[in-house]
Amino acid sequence: MVFSVFSDAYYMKEALKEAEKAFELDEVPVGAIVVVDNYIIARSHNLTERLMDVTAHAEMQVITAAANHIGGKYLTDCTLFVTVEPCLMCATAMHWAQLGKLVYGAQDPKKGFSNYGDKILHPQTEVVQGFKHKECAELMARFFKGKRD
Amino acid sequence: MVFSVFSDAYYMKEALKEAEKAFELDEVPVGAIVVVDNYIIARSHNLTERLMDVTAHAEMQVITAAANHIGGKYLTDCTLFVTVEPCLMCATAMHWAQLGKLVYGAQDPKKGFSNYGDKILHPQTEVVQGFKHKECAELMARFFKGKRD
Repeated sequence: MVFSVFSDAYYMKEALKEAEKAFELDEVPVGAIVVVDNYIIARSHNLTERLMDVTAHAEMQVITAAANHIGGKYLTDCTLFVTVEPCLMCATAMHWAQLGKLVYGAQDPKKGFSNYGDKILHPQTEVVQGFKHKECAELMARFFKGKRD
Repeated sequence: MVFSVFSDAYYMKEALKEAEKAFELDEVPVGAIVVVDNYIIARSHNLTERLMDVTAHAEMQVITAAANHIGGKYLTDCTLFVTVEPCLMCATAMHWAQLGKLVYGAQDPKKGFSNYGDKILHPQTEVVQGFKHKECAELMARFFKGKRD
């Protein structure tokens, strides 16, 4: 089996590593990375509890970090990998950033942006949904099961 | 005429002062403040160009700043004044923060959250729309007129 480090599977695994870091911090385990020209230019995980800030979703942090890296606010050449479907806040930030491509894992039937129609993201943003969704959803299920026990 | 410094008009004037600062920086002129118990605990203006960051809307900054001030991520006792109707990103951040009250000025028929139904904000959030909308819209019109000239 040929394995390229430049595959979507590789990058989603990196996003999952970030999600695991959130899990360890008792944060809802969502991780995200931004890739441009095969380089990871931003990586983070949900920190809303640690920072006591509802805006500290993984996606928001990597959008800001990627823009800093690039030196411009538009992420048209970037791909953002995130382990869970973005909420409306994060999807709208991706719209403003004119994100090139979004790859996300587990669906979020309650708060995911796709509940609000197909006009939330920028029309130029390519979307891959449900990528590695089992691994991504399993981590979320494990987190919330721990909360219920 | 009796004038209370604790009126919505007073606070919106402070938000407009912030919007004027954005105007001076050649940023889309939106200003926001957060008030709790009659105290302004956060104030800022749009800085998306200056920070090269699409997430640097006035509202996002004051939500983060207010949470820092309070020491908690929920803004249930807070009122957020903003000169222009929030976009979906900012309105969803307000939802996550369970904002107590939102007072906004000019409508945004293109990007305002109210274009997406009445379920975007938290159900507990009281909303006052169109407050001092003439002054708020005038500043926006002046800004964009300058861009077209």
